[in-house]
Amino acid sequence: MFVTFPQRLAEQCRERKNPVVVGLDPRWGQLPASFRSGVAEADLRRMAAGYLEFCRGVIDVVAAMVPAVKPQCAFFEQIGPDGMTALHEVIRYARSKGLVVILDAKRNDIGSTAQAYAEGMLGSSSPWGADALTVSPYLGDDSLDPFVQVAKVRDAGLFILVKTSNPGGGLFQDLEADGRAIYEHVAEYVERVARSTCDPSDRTSGGYGLAGAVVGATYPEQLGRLRATMPHAWLLVPGYGSQGGTARDVAGAFDERGFGAVVNNSRGIIFAHARREYAERFGERNWQGAVEQATRDMIDELRGETSVGRLASG
Amino acid sequence: MFVTFPQRLAEQCRERKNPVVVGLDPRWGQLPASFRSGVAEADLRRMAAGYLEFCRGVIDVVAAMVPAVKPQCAFFEQIGPDGMTALHEVIRYARSKGLVVILDAKRNDIGSTAQAYAEGMLGSSSPWGADALTVSPYLGDDSLDPFVQVAKVRDAGLFILVKTSNPGGGLFQDLEADGRAIYEHVAEYVERVARSTCDPSDRTSGGYGLAGAVVGATYPEQLGRLRATMPHAWLLVPGYGSQGGTARDVAGAFDERGFGAVVNNSRGIIFAHARREYAERFGERNWQGAVEQATRDMIDELRGETSVGRLASG
Repeated sequence: MFVTFPQRLAEQCRERKNPVVVGLDPRWGQLPASFRSGVAEADLRRMAAGYLEFCRGVIDVVAAMVPAVKPQCAFFEQIGPDGMTALHEVIRYARSKGLVVILDAKRNDIGSTAQAYAEGMLGSSSPWGADALTVSPYLGDDSLDPFVQVAKVRDAGLFILVKTSNPGGGLFQDLEADGRAIYEHVAEYVERVARSTCDPSDRTSGGYGLAGAVVGATYPEQLGRLRATMPHAWLLVPGYGSQGGTARDVAGAFDERGFGAVVNNSRGIIFAHARREYAERFGERNWQGAVEQATRDMIDELRGETSVGRLASG
Repeated sequence: MFVTFPQRLAEQCRERKNPVVVGLDPRWGQLPASFRSGVAEADLRRMAAGYLEFCRGVIDVVAAMVPAVKPQCAFFEQIGPDGMTALHEVIRYARSKGLVVILDAKRNDIGSTAQAYAEGMLGSSSPWGADALTVSPYLGDDSLDPFVQVAKVRDAGLFILVKTSNPGGGLFQDLEADGRAIYEHVAEYVERVARSTCDPSDRTSGGYGLAGAVVGATYPEQLGRLRATMPHAWLLVPGYGSQGGTARDVAGAFDERGFGAVVNNSRGIIFAHARREYAERFGERNWQGAVEQATRDMIDELRGETSVGRLASG
């Protein structure tokens, strides 16, 4: 059967009965000590092997629990070509385990170069081969359109930065032009693409298109308003947990059936062994137990405070 | 001697007597046939070897002629981990030939992830190790500051997207807030960082700081105004040649001594063998002769139409 990205994402959320995305941000200094022992920080090849092993370990725990993972390109790129090879393997492994893979790379460039990024990171013969990609909007529509075209051909997805979770995100995003914030102008573009790429008759994806938006959990009021102004766009919501966003804060991101948003947590899950709540019970030795418990707790929080509970009961 | 990025760039422009940046955008289909013959498009390893050989060939020609090269990350990333290994080698080779290397990656992310990109692409132990990096401003000041800090420590440079050369760049960049376009708000941030990182007593760099701005040659009027509003920022000017920018269009980018801007040309130089002006005289067989002639012609155009002529006579 022909399955689009919004269909696949909805199906995964329905099946796992939650919208949690586990962010794969392998920061060397925070890996359990067993991954680091005996490896010098200059030994990029062995660091890359450690990242791959660690991410596989996370994926093994969460593959049956959550709909998607989000590898963060920056941490792999940081350790050079070997890191990029590890990223490629992480994506492949996660997909083989049935997870949707959202590659967080925030790429973009002008037209013909954007085409290269789009083909490279999302195209049908992409050596990375993620299911969806995050992209940056500053360069305008002719820089975003190549990603949309490639995503259409391969039934992949896009998440365009709209309102980011960091405190300084407002410096340019919140500037008001023509009575609306810049991020709302970007949201209009996203909704236009989302609407034009959705299939209203499709019961699985529930009327969502291939373009989605990144909107931080740390701005709950804007999140609710953006849900309303982008009714055809999946939202990717970062900023949960370590950055301060709570289940109540993200309630406005979902539609009444519990669809329409996925919520990312990176450090709070993958490095749960170091969190006060889990350190004593699990510790570094059972870091995978901590990952499992933190994931379960986040799922429960979202089910308790948002319409996501309907995925579980439906 | 302790040399900052703006000093190094100024010194290179003075020494080569021109501000030309050769963009290394290896597009597979446009490489001279000799690089492609017998290589299947699915054979990423051999494609990567071809990119490396081609870029080395370009560098061999231009190293003594121009101050800098600008590898475009997208084309290397497009062919996977082997491409990223080739990029690493290209950067190393260009630096070994005395060129300033500006890595065009347009990266950014929120704070702690921006830190990873900054350390990774620009830090003192960076596996890529370029002299400067292009970054995107949409995520605000706390996403740009980590790049500034890392650049300070390593005496590297930054070029922040301000007004890009593509036709659609204006969709968000030209929106007006508080009486100024969004790109002018970004320019204010760039100037603030540039001013705070320049050494006014330094005769070599002439009072420029480590943060620069990307401003397209295709918007000559804005280019002149941005030169005035960012007196301490080096400008990286794309859009020359294939995209339509001429020497006259970029005249406003330079200060009265011929400093303050570098002008990039990618396809117009590296694929000059396919341009009408050079095809007959050089052809694919002597593609390096075409690269040399196209570079020389661009240098002459800039010397004829802009204050860059003073670098040559000074």
